[in-house]
This record gives sequence, C-alpha cells and structure tokens, in this order.
Amino acid sequence: MKIVQTKFIRKRITYNGAQLAPHWIYKNFDICGDAMVCFIGPADVPLKNMVDLEDVKSQSPIYSELMLHFIAEFFDVDLEKAIYRQRLFMVIMKECLEKRIGKRLQRRGDDLYDGKRKLTVSIATASPISTLIHAGINIKSKNTPVLTAGLIDYQLAAKPLADEIASLFKRECASIWKARCKVQGR
Amino acid sequence: MKIVQTKFIRKRITYNGAQLAPHWIYKNFDICGDAMVCFIGPADVPLKNMVDLEDVKSQSPIYSELMLHFIAEFFDVDLEKAIYRQRLFMVIMKECLEKRIGKRLQRRGDDLYDGKRKLTVSIATASPISTLIHAGINIKSKNTPVLTAGLIDYQLAAKPLADEIASLFKRECASIWKARCKVQGR
Amino acid sequence: MKIVQTKFIRKRITYNGAQLAPHWIYKNFDICGDAMVCFIGPADVPLKNMVDLEDVKSQSPIYSELMLHFIAEFFDVDLEKAIYRQRLFMVIMKECLEKRIGKRLQRRGDDLYDGKRKLTVSIATASPISTLIHAGINIKSKNTPVLTAGLIDYQLAAKPLADEIASLFKRECASIWKARCKVQGR
Amino acid sequence: MKIVQTKFIRKRITYNGAQLAPHWIYKNFDICGDAMVCFIGPADVPLKNMVDLEDVKSQSPIYSELMLHFIAEFFDVDLEKAIYRQRLFMVIMKECLEKRIGKRLQRRGDDLYDGKRKLTVSIATASPISTLIHAGINIKSKNTPVLTAGLIDYQLAAKPLADEIASLFKRECASIWKARCKVQGR
Amino acid sequence: MKIVQTKFIRKRITYNGAQLAPHWIYKNFDICGDAMVCFIGPADVPLKNMVDLEDVKSQSPIYSELMLHFIAEFFDVDLEKAIYRQRLFMVIMKECLEKRIGKRLQRRGDDLYDGKRKLTVSIATASPISTLIHAGINIKSKNTPVLTAGLIDYQLAAKPLADEIASLFKRECASIWKARCKVQGR
Amino acid sequence: MKIVQTKFIRKRITYNGAQLAPHWIYKNFDICGDAMVCFIGPADVPLKNMVDLEDVKSQSPIYSELMLHFIAEFFDVDLEKAIYRQRLFMVIMKECLEKRIGKRLQRRGDDLYDGKRKLTVSIATASPISTLIHAGINIKSKNTPVLTAGLIDYQLAAKPLADEIASLFKRECASIWKARCKVQGR
Repeated sequence: MKIVQTKFIRKRITYNGAQLAPHWIYKNFDICGDAMVCFIGPADVPLKNMVDLEDVKSQSPIYSELMLHFIAEFFDVDLEKAIYRQRLFMVIMKECLEKRIGKRLQRRGDDLYDGKRKLTVSIATASPISTLIHAGINIKSKNTPVLTAGLIDYQLAAKPLADEIASLFKRECASIWKARCKVQGR
Repeated sequence: MKIVQTKFIRKRITYNGAQLAPHWIYKNFDICGDAMVCFIGPADVPLKNMVDLEDVKSQSPIYSELMLHFIAEFFDVDLEKAIYRQRLFMVIMKECLEKRIGKRLQRRGDDLYDGKRKLTVSIATASPISTLIHAGINIKSKNTPVLTAGLIDYQLAAKPLADEIASLFKRECASIWKARCKVQGR
Repeated sequence: MKIVQTKFIRKRITYNGAQLAPHWIYKNFDICGDAMVCFIGPADVPLKNMVDLEDVKSQSPIYSELMLHFIAEFFDVDLEKAIYRQRLFMVIMKECLEKRIGKRLQRRGDDLYDGKRKLTVSIATASPISTLIHAGINIKSKNTPVLTAGLIDYQLAAKPLADEIASLFKRECASIWKARCKVQGR
Repeated sequence: MKIVQTKFIRKRITYNGAQLAPHWIYKNFDICGDAMVCFIGPADVPLKNMVDLEDVKSQSPIYSELMLHFIAEFFDVDLEKAIYRQRLFMVIMKECLEKRIGKRLQRRGDDLYDGKRKLTVSIATASPISTLIHAGINIKSKNTPVLTAGLIDYQLAAKPLADEIASLFKRECASIWKARCKVQGR
Repeated sequence: MKIVQTKFIRKRITYNGAQLAPHWIYKNFDICGDAMVCFIGPADVPLKNMVDLEDVKSQSPIYSELMLHFIAEFFDVDLEKAIYRQRLFMVIMKECLEKRIGKRLQRRGDDLYDGKRKLTVSIATASPISTLIHAGINIKSKNTPVLTAGLIDYQLAAKPLADEIASLFKRECASIWKARCKVQGR
Repeated sequence: MKIVQTKFIRKRITYNGAQLAPHWIYKNFDICGDAMVCFIGPADVPLKNMVDLEDVKSQSPIYSELMLHFIAEFFDVDLEKAIYRQRLFMVIMKECLEKRIGKRLQRRGDDLYDGKRKLTVSIATASPISTLIHAGINIKSKNTPVLTAGLIDYQLAAKPLADEIASLFKRECASIWKARCKVQGR
C-alpha cells in the first residue's frame, strides 16, 4: 500500500513560493512521506520565486488576497508523472466545485475557469529528491491581476471543500497504485 | 516536441483483448511511435485475454454488442504513469460526453457511469517495451453483463465523439510535455 | 507510507518454482500490492523452473523434504534493488536465527550457513511488472543434495520464526522508506 | 514522434560556461523542449564555470578567440545516455568535417583532432531537470592554450557547417527514436 | 569501474536470431555481466526470429553466406540508450574499416554502406532484464538479397578486425562511464 | 563487471559533513567512479551541514572525539537503493565487529548498538548526479552527546577493521551485481 497523508493546517499562511520546496511539509508539520497539506492565506509570489518560466517570461506575477492552497510532495523524481498527477488533481478540484456550484467549469491544461474568470493557479515541479505540486483556488476575487472568481462568489466554504478534495485525491492515488499492482503485463 | 499520433480506423474490429499488445498499432496501421487509434466494433474478451486480475478473479468477462474503442501505446515503460495517463484519458472522455449529453456523469477510478449505468470499460498495462491503454464506450447497451448505457441511448454519433476525444487527448499529452519542459526545478 | 503486507499461509504448499511468479500472491491470497507470504512445505524445483543460471549450469537442483518458505513481490522493476532487498532479508533471517540458536551463523552472499551446513536457498528475480524474492530455510535436513541443517536440528518452531522474520522485514522496509523521505539532498 | 528543435542564432555570444544551464535555450530563444542552438563567438570559460573536474584538476581553462558553438538540452535525466548522445554528436561533426576537408580526422573520446591539432571542446552534464551538451569547434586557431586547428585553416564557412551538423543530429535523434519504437522485445 | 568483457569465439556459429537472447553469452561462454562476443558464420534469420518490425513488414529476410558477427548484452533496461550504444558501435566499426580500406564509407542510421553496396546488418533490442545488440558485417558478398560488399572484397581478415572493433568498443564504453562520473552537475 | 574502488586515507580528517558531497572522493583522492574511502578523525557536524532532517528537528548534533569514517559515492541516482546499500554496509560492519568482540551487537535501522551504548552514526543521501553514504564508528567514546562505545573500549585497532569492512563491502557489491546478471527473468 502507498498512502498519501493529508492534513488541513488551521494556521493562516501566505503562499509566496517558498512553500514549494522539498521537505517543507515535513519540516513544518512533521508529516514524513508522500503528503498533501491544505491551508488558507493570500498568494503573493515574487517573480524570483516563480518556477513556471512561461509566467516569468510574460512577467505574470501571482497575487490573490485570499486563496485555499494545496501543497503536495511525492518522493519520486519523475517530473512528467508529477504533471499527470497535478492534472488529475485539478480534475478532482473541478469535479468538487461543479458538484457544489451546479454548473460546468472549464479546464485548460492545469487551470480552471468559469467562462472567462480564472479560478485557480497551479504548478508542478521537481526537487532533487521529490516532486512538488502547488494548487490554489481563489477565495476572494478582488484585485487580482486577471479576471477571476473565488469561493465567496459562489458562497462556498473553504474548509469542507479542501477536506473533500484532499480526501478524493488521496483515494485516487491509492486507487491508481492498486490498479498498477493488480494488472498483468502483456 | 513529443506528439501522440491519432487515427480513426474505419474498418470494423472486434475487441477481444488481442489488440492490447505491443506494436499492434504499428503492425496494423503503420503508425510508429506513441499513438492512439479509434475504431468501432463489438467487445468480447475471453477471461484468458483479460489482464485485470480483479476481473479475472470475479469472473467478470467483457462483452458489448457494439462499442467505440480506443487503443493507445506509449513507448515508455512506467506502468504507474500509464495509469495516470489512462485516468486523464477517461476524464477527457467524460468531459466530451457531458458537453454533449448536458448532464454530469460520474467517474469511479477508470470507469464512467451515468447513475447506475456503466458506460465504459478500460485498462492500462505494460509490455516489456511500452505501455498500453484500452478504453471502450458502449454504443449499444443491450445484452451487457451489467446495467449499461450507450451512445445510442443519448443519440450520439461515435465518429465525431472519437475524433474530439482523440484530439483533446493528443493536445493534453502535448501540453503536459510542454509543462514538464518549461518549469524550473527547486 | 509504503507498507509491505505480510501473511502466514497455514496450507501446506510444495515450492516448485511456480510460486516465484508475478501476482502469485494476489491470485492465491487476495493481497494486492507489495507483500510477503510465508508457508511450510517441501521444496522440489525442477531445473526448467530454476532462474539462477549458475545453478542451472552446475545442474544443482533444489530439494528439501520440508522448508519454511517466504515469497515476496514488490511492484517496482529494478532488479539490482531487489537483490539488495533480498540480501537484507537474509540478514534479518540470520539475526532471528542467531538470537534463537545462540551462536553465530555465516552469510555468504544470499546463503546462510552453520559452518559447513547450508541452511537456506534464496533467489531474487524480475518479472515485467514486479520483482520477486524466494527464500527457504530447511526444517528437515535429511536427504538434501548438499550437507544441510534445518530448524528441527535446532529444535526451533517454524511459525513463530516466520512471524518474527516477516514482521522485522516489514519494519525494515518501512524504515528504509522513511529514511529515504526524511533526508535532504546534497 | 520526438523532435529536436534546432536554430542558428545570428547574434555573437561569448561562451563562458553560463550557457550550459537548464532552460538557457528556452529563456533566450523561446524554444521549449528538446533543442539545439548554434552560435558563433569566443570561448572563455573560467575554472569556476567548468564542470569537467578532470580539466579543473589539471587547471586546463578553455579559451578560443572564435568558435562555432552548439548547446543542446534534452528533457530527460540520464547522464550516461547524455554522454552517448554527445559522442554521437561529435561523430556527426567529424563526418561533416571530413567530407568538406577531404581527409580523415581522429576522434579520441569526445575530442576531434587533425593529427596533433585539437579541433574541438565538448562536455555533457546533467541538471536536476534535463541533460545538457556543449560542443565547440575552433574557427580561429591562434592563441589557444594547446595546439589547435580551426575552420579558417581549412577555409570552411561556419554557418553552412552548423546547419548541416544540426540537421543531421536532428535526423539521427529522430531515427534513434524510431528504431526504439519499431523493434520487438526479446 | 564498469567493464565490458569481450571474447572472440573460434567456433563457427550460424546467426539465426536465436543468439539475440538474454543470457545467450553467459549460457554458452560463461561470461557473466556486460559483454560482447564475436564469431564467424553464415546469417540466416527466418522472419519469425526477426525483431525489427519494419523488416518483417517489408518481408526483408537476413541472409549472408558468411559474416563476422558481434553479440552484446548490457544489464540495464533502457532501450533508447541501447540504440545510442549500437549506433556508436557502428561508428567504431566504420572507422576501423575506413582505416583499413583507405576510403570513406557511409553510415545511414545503423547501416554501413560503400556507395550502393550494403556492408552490415544490425539491431538493438531489449529483454526484460537486459538490452541486446547484434551487428554483422559481410565476409562474403555473393547471393545476398540486396547488393552487398564483404571483407573479402577488400581483402580484409575478419579476426584482427573483430579484435580491434571489440577492443575499441570496450574502451569507448569505459571512457563514457568515466565521463559520466567525472562531470559536475549544473 | 562493476567494481567499487576502496582506499584507506592515512591523513587525519575531521568529518564535518562537507565530505558528504558529490565528487569529494574524486577531487581529493583522484579515484573516479563508484568508490569508498576510509579515514580517521573527529566528527563535528554543525546542524547546518546535517542532512537527516529528523536529527535537525531534534537538534541532535553529531560529535565524537575520534571516529573511523567511511565515505562512499555511487554514480547512480536512486536514493531508496542507496539506503538499502547503506543498511547492508552497516550489517557488514556489525558482522566484522561481532567477530572481533565475540558478542552479539544490535542493529536498529542504520545504527549499531552494544546494549544501550551507540557505536555508530550513518546517513545516505543523493546528489543530482550520485548517491552518497557516510558511516562512522566511534574510536573514543568520551564526551559524546549520547552514551556510546568505541573501538578502544574493545581494544580494537581501526585500520585493520576498516580494511576488512571495505573489502567485504566491495565483495558484497560485486556479488550483488553478479547475482543481478546471472538470474533469468520470470
């Protein structure tokens, strides 16, 4: 069995990119191994902390007054697999939102949209000893660099949403591992 | 650039599990490299051809009078990654169906449901030199071993659906590879 | 967390090499994922079932009237790592025996000896989707092709020994994974 | 299909080792994915920028008044494979030169010689997210730390040579990938 | 240090494809580990033994009255790397031939030509536990399915050529491994 | 063949963590490739140099007046395998000590104990291009942060012990590689 540990952190934390670092979860929350933590806080990532070079080139900083954040670390080192995992995580987030909002959202790559309004930011990267995912969904949608929507626009509470997303992602990862183990080769 | 070649095969082919084999696409359709082909035909997989041992143990044969089939082969050998890829493929299939049907479907692991009616079968496995995916969506829903729904129940044409699914999957794979190449490490 | 599931099988099984096969544990005991099972039975491996080519070349069949057997399957595909794992397993077996017998044994590669008497057989190999370990320790030592000793020569019961070995191996694997996750790169 | 993108950069650039860095091509020339760029400029690599520790130990700096440079980045992380790729690149360079010069050159590891005169420098290394190759062939051969020959000694133009080398390397990589995909396992 | 063991086998052996199998070298010549053996004999590969599916599709059997053969096995499992290795081996063969013949030959992928005359056949493939290379150069050039040239056309002796090629390949592999170990990461 | 080169360094060196770095062996002792060196000296590792985050979190510095140290570097990049290797190294150290001391010691993970007295420190980690092991056994046992025993408590000489441990580890690695190469897949 391979199990992703999950935890909702009640402390408010500003996501500034420093959280997307190897062992940040272990150092701060004493969870060792594959894990995902969720927390609430602003997002304010200076360009020097950004790892998506396309955003750096287009000088697109990340800023939001309040977001629900997810940080995950997996102790394998295949960056392409990490991006598949991130995409699937965004799908789970999308499905949880659609169920609550009652309308279909759009996924473009690793971003979720409600029409023209951007709901999320996300990135997956690799450290020398692990792979890392950040995903954030706006809670507030004011004063963002692009047109956005946030959870308060849909009158959604962050904590139960976070719990469901993390729980479904944990189940998905376990189910993928089980599928890998129960299939015969050809 | 890494590109998944896609092709709709007009010839009717019965999916009996033999198609889930290394180089089946290259041998039959002369497409060399990562590829996905789609075709229409019955599904009738004897237990001895089934690779999902859970289904073998529960003696759950695969049978459908008519399905839209997708076979993909990727020339890497990470089975866990292949399953992530398969799940994402099922998500794309789900989104294409939802858009057409106008109602939300349910994904449970690698299966799509409309309530209690099962729409699809799917498996991902590995050969010594590649990984392989099969996914099939019912066209007809009669005489299946479990309660199913099929494309004719929704009055959907198979060919345009296949084309859109394959095209979006191709785009998704390209976009994942681009994301892998444009991100800095931590 | 990565956990190796372990189980003692009460049914008597003759080890003839067919047990060293992908999914043998899952097919027979419904344990899915990394696992080790233990059982008691004769060992009688015909040359055609032997995977150690050095033994095949020297025409050294495996035969024992009664052994305590361990079969493990890990769902990764690095054969060299599997052999490190097997060696460590033999060390754990050695330490459990020494504690009970009260004298030092000798390990030569993946074999345990009490002076000139051979106690064990073992092999690690790879399938296309997993790696596999077999280890057996003689219970009876009569009629073996080479000079051996067995558990009855030391008046040791097989079941509690098996339980302790499996439990320590499970703990070792968990501890190795934890060590891998808690260390910083350089 | 896997395609190496290639581009000749008309701007003069001094190679000082800083170009052998992950995403240097993407950041500067907006080419994302496996790629090779060629440019002309001096080479002046201080010891602190050198990655070949044998050269560092022997205090052998790299200096040339003018070279034709090639920088390649591949988004996989197997350093040994990167060196195979680099060697094959040097072979292609050698064949292009021999055809033009009309005499046989000598390859010693990753260096090309015309008798005692050294024509090239080259290195392959790994970043956490990619592998990197630099190769440079002297255009001028004066004032170099060791006895060298350069393209002007053979009255060869750099640009058409660069284009042919890059084009053949691109074709070689494509052909290797095709060979990998069209062969059955044993 | 990683060393490829090499050996010239004096016994005449017909290459029929069965030699391109895991452990064929170890089973027959007791060389364990990465190795290359050379031998002389006809080549007669029935289509069912051919692993290059492009040749199978075009029904291009391999036949030569007499060839100098090389079989190599490497105990790693990256098929793409095996093909890089094979290409470099063909380059070494080409350089040894050119030096003796005194004229430039042509390499197209993994084939060597003297103008329109084909000198060689070669393939690289993977087994579940290793990668394998076969390369053969014609000694006789009569009665071949396509226009060929052979060593006797150039009045070249096979044994010293084989020894030099194997020795240079061994040195190349050692030098590549050394290059991999002495370079710093970026 | 894959061979781990070993060397006893006669110069006294204080282990402060800086030795656990890629190419430290090559830079200082000109040994290129997989290698293990042994030396004698104090251990004094400031928290900032420690890579075991569990020790960093518990503020457990490493200090010993005199130790026998082992530093190993392997040019592969699988951190989990490196920890298996480290564990096996500690087992070899334990067996060498037990033979000399004439009593059984205890191994807990990667630490050796004589009852409550800790004999060793050890860590395995990864660099971007290699994996690294440090292990140290106390020579003196005074003034250590926890209760320890050292070689002088057992009247054991460090140099012959180091030579035997390094020699057995070298033989173990060679034997593991041979086992990997001589076994058939399943």
